[in-house]
Amino acid sequence: MEAIIYDLAIVGGGPAGSTAAIYAGRSGLRTVMLDKQMSGGQVMTSPKIENWPGSKEISGPDLAQSMKGHAGAYCDIKEFSEVLSIRKDGPFFIETSDGTVRSKAVIIATGAHHKKLCVPGEEHLSGRGVSYCATCDGFFFKGKDVAVIGGGNTAFLYAEYLNNIGCRVKLIHRRDSFRAEKALQDQVRSLGIELLTETTIEEFIGAEVLEKVRLRSVRDKESREIELSGAFIAIGEEPENGVAKVLGLEMTEEGYIKVDWKMRTSMPGVFAAGDITGGLKQIVVAAGQGAIAATTAFAELMRPYWI
Amino acid sequence: MEAIIYDLAIVGGGPAGSTAAIYAGRSGLRTVMLDKQMSGGQVMTSPKIENWPGSKEISGPDLAQSMKGHAGAYCDIKEFSEVLSIRKDGPFFIETSDGTVRSKAVIIATGAHHKKLCVPGEEHLSGRGVSYCATCDGFFFKGKDVAVIGGGNTAFLYAEYLNNIGCRVKLIHRRDSFRAEKALQDQVRSLGIELLTETTIEEFIGAEVLEKVRLRSVRDKESREIELSGAFIAIGEEPENGVAKVLGLEMTEEGYIKVDWKMRTSMPGVFAAGDITGGLKQIVVAAGQGAIAATTAFAELMRPYWI
Repeated sequence: MEAIIYDLAIVGGGPAGSTAAIYAGRSGLRTVMLDKQMSGGQVMTSPKIENWPGSKEISGPDLAQSMKGHAGAYCDIKEFSEVLSIRKDGPFFIETSDGTVRSKAVIIATGAHHKKLCVPGEEHLSGRGVSYCATCDGFFFKGKDVAVIGGGNTAFLYAEYLNNIGCRVKLIHRRDSFRAEKALQDQVRSLGIELLTETTIEEFIGAEVLEKVRLRSVRDKESREIELSGAFIAIGEEPENGVAKVLGLEMTEEGYIKVDWKMRTSMPGVFAAGDITGGLKQIVVAAGQGAIAATTAFAELMRPYWI
Repeated sequence: MEAIIYDLAIVGGGPAGSTAAIYAGRSGLRTVMLDKQMSGGQVMTSPKIENWPGSKEISGPDLAQSMKGHAGAYCDIKEFSEVLSIRKDGPFFIETSDGTVRSKAVIIATGAHHKKLCVPGEEHLSGRGVSYCATCDGFFFKGKDVAVIGGGNTAFLYAEYLNNIGCRVKLIHRRDSFRAEKALQDQVRSLGIELLTETTIEEFIGAEVLEKVRLRSVRDKESREIELSGAFIAIGEEPENGVAKVLGLEMTEEGYIKVDWKMRTSMPGVFAAGDITGGLKQIVVAAGQGAIAATTAFAELMRPYWI
């Protein structure tokens, strides 16, 4: 075990974690950022980002790299350090796959991931036509044929979003009814968006980019192929809440960490930021929350009575 | 009056407004961003910014310019258009100093400004040693002599922040007691930070950068000069809430617009983002809120029943 006790340990090295590290380090907190893999988070998987303010176009790895470099100017970074357990005994003892880290406060920025269909071609074509976020990637498909896969509010909002920017949209759902709220369904119908129900995806097809999707009817088991430039999978998200569970933090029904507007969790000394807190899953939102979490952590660490 | 009815009008062209414009435009909303001066907001006044994630160092005008350029790719920008009144009559009618704008929804991102001491040298040396934000600028004064001016929580947190990064800090306050909470006062005292009470600032002195401050004792009216590299004025902030008042939005006691976590105000169709909502006044926080406000505006505009 290292002798050093950090003021702050940040679990997760995506935009929320990196921004928290920048703010914490600049405030003089001795800070370490832990990531189970190479830091960067989900951003790393985006070939092109057009909505990071001030950058009309930047690749995900480039943005992640610049954030990591920025964080590294102010904190220690331990990559490939997966958190195995956390307990509080005076400071927090964080057991990782690469040793134990101690800290006086913790920010959890472990993120979330989109649920996958798990069909052939999905992984290969992810970022090349297959996407999980219309707000992030929709604009690249302006004027093209796209499909949204899912039946909840997110799927219907994606369908409207894509229709609104001039895509020809099909909405594909495996059931014959939708979970989305009625107003959204009415709106999508009024826009003339085609709804394919009782239809599943068998395969995403394309050499370099998505070209076709093979559909299968739930009713008659018939398969057919349709041509598409983009497919937006909106079948839900899963929070990376393993660390939150170990700490016994209060969570929402969906498994996201409950935070107040200062990013405090139910446990003193533990803060959270980014996708793990639910809400709008966007890079700039996560970054903003990281700044708040670090600033709150600084203020709370300065009030020694509460530890 | 222009014939066009925008989907969304954004009042204020700082980081919150620009980011909202990027998100709104990308979602296909026909958007206009109004600013009473050249857009950019308070960012324009920062010579150097080191906490915009991914940019180790960027000038305020450069960051503002890149955000404005980014927004301009997705929306109309009307600078030098001060909002004189807003009323809702079907759509919103926004009277500006440069004509009337109509829109179906409005995001208010008018910001806030730091209260000024209004003493000689303050304006001239602002950004050259005189600052209103330790979180933004403190790091530039690492290891130097600085003063914090004020007696509330912010002043005490600034003092601790600056002490923590290795500044030699004096806290200067015009009264003989402090509004800051006791724990913060105790902490500042325990750190050995010098407290100068019943002392006012008469003048900030320096040719190019701050060199000295002339103090005046409230008790004996004696003046004296001390050498300082940095002076952080923490005597409060004022929200730019003129537009919010005209609309009759619910506000906090301090005059900030009350919003929910989706950045909705008390009035349907009106959203708010950035410093005008209170909270942590940082560029990346404002930008994150702008993204949320635009995304919510898009979703609400898609539900036509509510207008």
